[in-house]
Amino acid sequence: MSAPVRAWIVASGDELLQGRALDTNSAWLSRELAALGVEAARFVVLGDDEAALCALAEEAGREVELLLVTGGLGPTLDDLTRHALAAAAGVELVEDAAALEALRAWFAARGRPFAESNRRQALVPRGAELLPNAAGTAPGFLLRCGRALVAALPGPPREMERVFQDELRPRLERALPPRRVRRIARFHLFGLPEAAFADLCGDWMARGADPLLGVTAHSGVLSAQLSASSPERLAERAAQVRERFREWIFSEESGDLARVLGELLLARGISIATAESCTGGLLAQRLTQLPGISAVFGWGFVSYANAAKQALLGVEPSLLESHGAVSLPVAEAMARGAAQRSGARLSVSLTGVAGPDGGTEAKPVGLVCFATSFDGVIQSTERRFALRGRDLIREFAAQTALDLARRRVLD
Amino acid sequence: MSAPVRAWIVASGDELLQGRALDTNSAWLSRELAALGVEAARFVVLGDDEAALCALAEEAGREVELLLVTGGLGPTLDDLTRHALAAAAGVELVEDAAALEALRAWFAARGRPFAESNRRQALVPRGAELLPNAAGTAPGFLLRCGRALVAALPGPPREMERVFQDELRPRLERALPPRRVRRIARFHLFGLPEAAFADLCGDWMARGADPLLGVTAHSGVLSAQLSASSPERLAERAAQVRERFREWIFSEESGDLARVLGELLLARGISIATAESCTGGLLAQRLTQLPGISAVFGWGFVSYANAAKQALLGVEPSLLESHGAVSLPVAEAMARGAAQRSGARLSVSLTGVAGPDGGTEAKPVGLVCFATSFDGVIQSTERRFALRGRDLIREFAAQTALDLARRRVLD
Repeated sequence: MSAPVRAWIVASGDELLQGRALDTNSAWLSRELAALGVEAARFVVLGDDEAALCALAEEAGREVELLLVTGGLGPTLDDLTRHALAAAAGVELVEDAAALEALRAWFAARGRPFAESNRRQALVPRGAELLPNAAGTAPGFLLRCGRALVAALPGPPREMERVFQDELRPRLERALPPRRVRRIARFHLFGLPEAAFADLCGDWMARGADPLLGVTAHSGVLSAQLSASSPERLAERAAQVRERFREWIFSEESGDLARVLGELLLARGISIATAESCTGGLLAQRLTQLPGISAVFGWGFVSYANAAKQALLGVEPSLLESHGAVSLPVAEAMARGAAQRSGARLSVSLTGVAGPDGGTEAKPVGLVCFATSFDGVIQSTERRFALRGRDLIREFAAQTALDLARRRVLD
Repeated sequence: MSAPVRAWIVASGDELLQGRALDTNSAWLSRELAALGVEAARFVVLGDDEAALCALAEEAGREVELLLVTGGLGPTLDDLTRHALAAAAGVELVEDAAALEALRAWFAARGRPFAESNRRQALVPRGAELLPNAAGTAPGFLLRCGRALVAALPGPPREMERVFQDELRPRLERALPPRRVRRIARFHLFGLPEAAFADLCGDWMARGADPLLGVTAHSGVLSAQLSASSPERLAERAAQVRERFREWIFSEESGDLARVLGELLLARGISIATAESCTGGLLAQRLTQLPGISAVFGWGFVSYANAAKQALLGVEPSLLESHGAVSLPVAEAMARGAAQRSGARLSVSLTGVAGPDGGTEAKPVGLVCFATSFDGVIQSTERRFALRGRDLIREFAAQTALDLARRRVLD
C-alpha cells in the first residue's frame, strides 16, 4: 500500500480565533475525508489574515497532498481567502462569468437588489475550477498550489457541507488514487458500551483494515462507520455488522433516537404521552424537536413533586410512601396515569436520582426507574448510570426512555 | 504602545483530528488570553504525534511569545506532550518528586490503587515549573522554548480551566508586560439585539481601546466583557456600562438565565410552575438543570394538544375557538391554570408557532405568546422571533419566558 493521502484543514475567521464561535467544519471535513481514505494531519484556525493564509497555503503545497480552507469567501473586505490563495498559487484574480450570473440569479430569485459588493464573490484565482454553491451566494473553487490540491469552501456549515457533498467529493473521488476511494455505510446503536462494541468487533476496527469499522459515542449512542474499497467488500461486512449487532442497531440513517422514535410513531399512527420526574421536561422536549410530532404527541407531564405525581398522574400516596418516588411501582403508576389521562396508546415514564444530592445507599445518584404502557400493558425496568454529573445522567435517562418506547412499538 | 503579545494555541489528540470530538479548549483560552492583553494568532490541532508537536513548538519559539498546549498529559503511551516539549526545549525528562507525591495522594484519597503507569504523569522537562492540577491527576508545566513561554495544560476542559485559573493565569500576569495585564468585568444582558448594543456602546468597543468592551451573543444572551489596564479605569467604565444597560443586565456572574432565575426563586422561597406548548418541555428542562430546584419547582405542564390545555390547565374551549391556541388570552389562561393547579405563587406559560409549518398571515412562524401569573396577577406579551428554524425559535422562546419570570419577581 502507498502512503495515505494527507490533508491540512484550515478554518479562517476572526470570530473563531477570538473564541466567539467554534470551528465545527474541520471535524466534519475530517470525518468525510477519512471515508475517502484521506488522513487529516492538522487543523489550523487563522484570523482574517491574508498573509498568514498565503504562507500556510505555500507550506501546505510543500508538505501535503490536499488543503481544504473554509470561510473568508463572503462579500466584505475582510473576506480574503480568494486573494490569499491566488497569491499562494502565483496567479491573479479574475471575474468568473458563470459565477457572476449565478449570483445575479440567486438575488433575483429572492427579489433582493444585487449590491455591487457582491461582485466580489464572483472573483476566482485564474485557472481555478468553480465549485457552485446551491445553498448560498459564495461559490467555492479548486486549484493547485505546489503539490497540493487546494479547495476553498464557504464558512457557514450548511453551505460548506452542501458544496462538499455536491461538488468537491465527486472531484476528489476522481482525483485520488482509485483504491483509496471508499464506500461507506453507517449504523447507529443504543444500549451497548463502546468498549463492549470494540470487543465484539475483534479486528474489524484494526488500523488500516479493509473493510474498516470506526465508532464514535455520543450520549450513549454509538455511531459506527464502515468503509471499504469496493462495494462487494462493503456489502459483505455490512451484513455481518447487522447480524452481530442486531440487538442494538436502531437506525442506519439517523443517530437521533427521538427522531427515529417519532418517525416510527408517525408512520404507524401511534400516539404517545410522557411522564417525567428527574429529567424535568427533557424527554418531551426531545420528542417535540421533530416537526409534525403534534399528530401523535399532545400531553407531557413534568411531575417533579410527589404532589404533582398524585394530582396529575393519579399515583397513590401509599405507593410513594411504601416504595419511595424512585421505584418501579411508582414509574409504572406514572406510565399508567399518563396513558389514561391523555388517552395515548403508548406512554413512557421515568423517575430517578439525578444528583448531585439526594442519593442514598439503596437509591444512589444515577438510579433511574422507567416504565412503558402500550395498549394498557405495563413494562418496567431500572438502570444505574455511573456517570459524572447531573446533566449527563438526565441526558442518558432521556435517551434510555426513548429507546424503551421504540422497543415497545417494535416488539 | 508596543506590539501585542501573540500566542499560538495547540490542542493535541487523535480524537480531535479524526473529528470524534471538538476542540473547545482553544476558544476558551483565546478569550481568557484576550483579557490578559494577549492576542491568539493561530490555533492548531494535532494528533498524538510527538514529532509534529516538537516541530511546532520549535517554530513557535521563533514566531511568538506564548504557546499553550492542551492534552497529551495522561498516563498512556500515546500521551506525548511532555516528551515533545522536552525535545523542543532541548532538555531531558525527569521525575518530579512533588508531582509524584501529589499523584500518590490523589489516588490514596480516592481509595484507588496506584498503577505504575501513572508515574509517567510525574515526568516533566528538566527546569520546567510545575502547574499543579487540583481537579485531576495530570499536572501541567511551564518552560521556555526559544523566545516563547510554553505552557502544557491537561486536555479535559474542567481540569484545563482549573489549572489555567489557579496556576497559569497568575504566572502570566507576572510574566507579561505590566500595562498589558488587564482587569476584567463581565455583564450578561437579555432582550437587546447585538447590533443595538454596539450602537449604544459607541467607541467603547473600538479596537485597541482601553477600557475595551467586547461582546458575544448566545441564544439571545449578550455577554459583554470589559477589560482595562488599571482597576480605576475598569471601575469607572463598569459603572457607565451598568448605567447605560441597566434595563437589560440580568447578571454579572452567570449568562445562564435559568440559573439566575432559579437562584432568585430559591433565595426568596418563591415557587414556580411552567405551562408550555411550542417549547414542548424545554422551559421546564432548563429550570430543572439547577440542582436543588425541587424546593421551588414541582409541576410542569406540556400541553401540546388543545385537549391537554383544557384538561390539564382548565383553558376554556370557547377561548381556544375564538382566539386560537396561539393567542394572549390562551397564554393567560394557561398561566392561571398552572398556578391554580400547582399552588405555585409564580407561573409562566407560552404558546406559539415554532414551524416550519403551521404559520398563517395573522400568526406567522416565530410568533409566541407569553403570560406570567404572580400572586394571582396576570401579565402577558407576545414576541415575533425572526429566526431560522424550529430549534432556534424554541430556544429563544424558552429564554424569553425565563426572563419574563425573572422580571416579574424583581418588579
